[in-house]
Amino acid sequence: MPLDRASLIPALTNVATRLRIDSLKSTSEAGSGHPTSCCSMADLMAALFFAEMRFDPRDPHHPQSDRFVLSKGHAAPILYAAWAEAGAFDRADLLTLRQIGSDLEGHPTPRLPFVDVATGSLGQGVCAAIGIALNARRIGSDYRTYVLLGDGESAEGSVWEAADLAVLNALDNVCGITDVNALGQSRPTMWQHDMDQFARRWRAFGWHTIVIDGHDMNAILDALEEARRTRGQPTMILARTIKGKGVSFVEGKEGWHGKAFKKGDELDRALAELERQFVPTPEGSEEVSLASRIQKPPSAPRDAAAPKPVDPPAYTMGQEVATREAYGTAIAKLGVADSRVVALDADVKNSTFSERFEKVLPDRFYQNFIAEQAMVGAAMGLAARGAIPFPSTFACFLSRAADFIRMTAISNVNVKLAGSHAGISIGEDGPSQMALEDLALFRAEPNFTVLYPSDAVSAERLVAAAAYHPGPAYIRTSRPKTPVIYANDEPFPIGGLKVLRSASSDVATVIGGGITVFEALKAYDMLQAEGTSIRVIDLYSVAPADAAGLIAAGRATGGRLITVEDHYAGGGIGDAVAEAVAGAGFTVQRLAVREIPRSGKPEELLERFGISAKQIVHAVKELTQVRSTKPQVRA
Amino acid sequence: MPLDRASLIPALTNVATRLRIDSLKSTSEAGSGHPTSCCSMADLMAALFFAEMRFDPRDPHHPQSDRFVLSKGHAAPILYAAWAEAGAFDRADLLTLRQIGSDLEGHPTPRLPFVDVATGSLGQGVCAAIGIALNARRIGSDYRTYVLLGDGESAEGSVWEAADLAVLNALDNVCGITDVNALGQSRPTMWQHDMDQFARRWRAFGWHTIVIDGHDMNAILDALEEARRTRGQPTMILARTIKGKGVSFVEGKEGWHGKAFKKGDELDRALAELERQFVPTPEGSEEVSLASRIQKPPSAPRDAAAPKPVDPPAYTMGQEVATREAYGTAIAKLGVADSRVVALDADVKNSTFSERFEKVLPDRFYQNFIAEQAMVGAAMGLAARGAIPFPSTFACFLSRAADFIRMTAISNVNVKLAGSHAGISIGEDGPSQMALEDLALFRAEPNFTVLYPSDAVSAERLVAAAAYHPGPAYIRTSRPKTPVIYANDEPFPIGGLKVLRSASSDVATVIGGGITVFEALKAYDMLQAEGTSIRVIDLYSVAPADAAGLIAAGRATGGRLITVEDHYAGGGIGDAVAEAVAGAGFTVQRLAVREIPRSGKPEELLERFGISAKQIVHAVKELTQVRSTKPQVRA
Repeated sequence: MPLDRASLIPALTNVATRLRIDSLKSTSEAGSGHPTSCCSMADLMAALFFAEMRFDPRDPHHPQSDRFVLSKGHAAPILYAAWAEAGAFDRADLLTLRQIGSDLEGHPTPRLPFVDVATGSLGQGVCAAIGIALNARRIGSDYRTYVLLGDGESAEGSVWEAADLAVLNALDNVCGITDVNALGQSRPTMWQHDMDQFARRWRAFGWHTIVIDGHDMNAILDALEEARRTRGQPTMILARTIKGKGVSFVEGKEGWHGKAFKKGDELDRALAELERQFVPTPEGSEEVSLASRIQKPPSAPRDAAAPKPVDPPAYTMGQEVATREAYGTAIAKLGVADSRVVALDADVKNSTFSERFEKVLPDRFYQNFIAEQAMVGAAMGLAARGAIPFPSTFACFLSRAADFIRMTAISNVNVKLAGSHAGISIGEDGPSQMALEDLALFRAEPNFTVLYPSDAVSAERLVAAAAYHPGPAYIRTSRPKTPVIYANDEPFPIGGLKVLRSASSDVATVIGGGITVFEALKAYDMLQAEGTSIRVIDLYSVAPADAAGLIAAGRATGGRLITVEDHYAGGGIGDAVAEAVAGAGFTVQRLAVREIPRSGKPEELLERFGISAKQIVHAVKELTQVRSTKPQVRA
Repeated sequence: MPLDRASLIPALTNVATRLRIDSLKSTSEAGSGHPTSCCSMADLMAALFFAEMRFDPRDPHHPQSDRFVLSKGHAAPILYAAWAEAGAFDRADLLTLRQIGSDLEGHPTPRLPFVDVATGSLGQGVCAAIGIALNARRIGSDYRTYVLLGDGESAEGSVWEAADLAVLNALDNVCGITDVNALGQSRPTMWQHDMDQFARRWRAFGWHTIVIDGHDMNAILDALEEARRTRGQPTMILARTIKGKGVSFVEGKEGWHGKAFKKGDELDRALAELERQFVPTPEGSEEVSLASRIQKPPSAPRDAAAPKPVDPPAYTMGQEVATREAYGTAIAKLGVADSRVVALDADVKNSTFSERFEKVLPDRFYQNFIAEQAMVGAAMGLAARGAIPFPSTFACFLSRAADFIRMTAISNVNVKLAGSHAGISIGEDGPSQMALEDLALFRAEPNFTVLYPSDAVSAERLVAAAAYHPGPAYIRTSRPKTPVIYANDEPFPIGGLKVLRSASSDVATVIGGGITVFEALKAYDMLQAEGTSIRVIDLYSVAPADAAGLIAAGRATGGRLITVEDHYAGGGIGDAVAEAVAGAGFTVQRLAVREIPRSGKPEELLERFGISAKQIVHAVKELTQVRSTKPQVRA
């Protein structure tokens, strides 16, 4: 039986006071953190967690649970305090905040079962929340998604991308709450307490918008109810709050962002003041535990639709198919076989061929228009709730979402990114459309799998491999058509490579990926005609790379490795190979793009920027000539 | 004498027709491009270039010239056509579009003198335009900045970051024009021709907003005049247009994005239709060349304030100063010495210490609030017009602007980015605040200088070196205080390194950067106590790296190199060193962060994630032991 407001309000007020106290204690114990950012939102958190959301503190991953995303991740201490108050873990654990042995980190990460995505890079949580809400549609659940963001982070463009995406999808299952405490890290925020600045923006973007006093518990409860009843559009509750609320000597004061209260007199004064804010509750209700009254999610079967087998590739040897096209075919097949698979686009579906997925599975295809941050952020949210999302665009434009990719890695979620139009081989469009640093971007993340198919068969196989490999992955595809060189039943395990040409007389190993595999094969033919034999490797798995396979090839070919990649020299295949064979005493020579390229025909560009068959032949000759006058590497 | 409207309108109409014809001809000749995206904006371009802007076609870089940024860079052909029409170059050159020998690339780059910043990654030009407008204030010029964007790209969050930034700075010298042609690449745009969707957003963000028919020349001229007369706020002209306007069989049709007309019948039909759109002009005005009537910029001295010498560093040996703090001191000194130097912040000035610049030079300090894309985009625009901008934030949040950094590289402008709080040594805040892939990001760009000071002296010296080194640069600083180890007069040339410990008996070379230099020095002491000697190198210039210096050290220390970096293993110092010494037959062992880190004390994290002094000692021992049982590398 729900409590009446007369009993509920004082009980919530006391919860809020406890959350403030816990936030102060834990940050002071840690010696760092953001207690004043917690204090401004304590009343909002109390109402949300203990009078609004349905969830099971002992089973945070329940598929029917309402979700909460703390976009202003620096307020982590109050998130942890709320879950402790709800009974998820012992309140005493809050004092382990920020310690190396504790999962209660400085900013929330999914190491904690009640955190869906890592936050702390501002303006991202709201994008993830949209993905989480889209997932509710996917699984046919009426769970609601709440996201609390700061006023400062509303300056991030990604917030407005998310705003559009929510409206486009008419996500009335989303409720945003902006904690407008008017103070940023280094100064007052852009709009401070001018609530109209926020309201007119959110209204203009099509959200139902409610402005309240964020410390008025009645107003908070009313707003949450209004949000829940709003149909056809998401709601943003704009809550005017005071930073440091409850501790009079810091309330609304600059210079207190990210500062813990000093243990001793400073903390004691603050805590004493908060203790005095506990209010009496109506007779009998004092013992009411709001935690025990949290509405549990309805029991429902877990998301258990067993995937069907994926149809194998069906190409003929030599058939000319771009890997981007095979990617489109592959995700469509996967989607048919597995209801968890979804695809996201940023208005380039006809170039990435993700339109093939949309054609057969329009309900699981999410159009983000030209908003790559929201696309990847939404994918994070979808993945966190059990989907296997494939966001794709031109590989160069994934760099627009680099910070989201970084947070995807920290979140360690099953986002499978695909970037098409890699490298200078796109030709005439010019450098702004060429991805030449994407391998560096993805390879830097330690838990990302980085795959780079060269033909249609490997593309299909690697897409399926990525889908079912735990953790984030990146698939790089190319614009030009390339001939099929693998049999349809060829396996492509992650972490492997393919030796395409091999003889005992090989003088060097040439390692390519994607389009350059074909340049290497051409170089092989050219050298063969002159009586020189080289080993050719397709390094389809860039990360992890097959160190043993590369070392074996190096040992068999005089320690001479030549990498050739349609990518800048830094961070790509050359670096990956060099690291894999470090310690073997090999020479790794890198053919890569070493200056800002320009428009031109693909074959002209490969030649001019040093990654053509001719350049490979030249490199082989130079390396073997130079080597023959120098001591051999012993390997 | 200005023409009256009766003469002007038909003349402009004919210019627009010629621009359409040129756009079609050049893209058909190239066999690719976006003619329909040009046709929708032809009337806007004609009015802007030939009745509104003041500029000198023969001197596009004139400091008093009005500026034009084509944010929808794929419409490059009409930009080129307009400059040819204005007399900047021969119209016949338009037919070299997209050829490898031509600077008329698929998307505009500053290889062309009339292009300030490269565009083609959507939603960026508008950010650059804000920077260009800020520069007008810096040099005290009344030049105006015009930026034309597409409706599709208005979905990019960066557009709304720019919108805020322009209003915050009350930039009434900015006029945006949105070409609302309602068709994106793969489908109709998000809001299609619902002009109110655009108008209410721009108004909500505080722009003066004018909705017009983008093919009504009178309305265009009126709107441009209204924009020019608007004070205290920027203006956005929202122009309803038809994609493919002028060629009836493609007007408003899907499937024509990014498609050139086929030479022969298809092109001929289109051209014939356009030719018929030339209109008669009032008697006498037919011969009027609008090009000759373009208003020239007022003559003014070029931006020639000679920089004064920068005060040298003034530290005492052993003094504990964080490099981020020395960075703040350095940019403030630079700013005092050189009026071209400006600083940009994203609400972390008290952490990056850029507040020291603001304190002495508030007029050249631009606060962007939490909007890193706009910050870097504005820096591009400032740099393109002669400023030397230092945008700074936490290094991890520069990844938010990775695509802008990519375009900075393509633009090859003097943007000097600085990222603080590098790596796990920040401690308790946790992984979301740790930059562990920033070196990979910047090192991938072939024309970026990447600098990494370890102490306050090197920080000050490297900031000054970056400022005056042509092209983009990145400076990585650390959170913890480190002791000063260099004399105030120590030189730090770009491309160099410092050998800090060296003896003939060195068994290995340990190469660090920033914080790990001090771990290496500690390891040196620990090993020295056991009678083992190592060489220690401070690789303060990561790109370019001093290959000769590294090879010399390797040769002197048995070919054993150990890199240690507060960065992930991919793309950073280890890869940089490995590439620099490739071919020397050395073993490069990399100590780097190899998994997603977590919160904890800095020293605990250095230990746990393998980059502490103890771990270096361990690596040295292992490498020397292993090596002693294996054949020596001959170098």
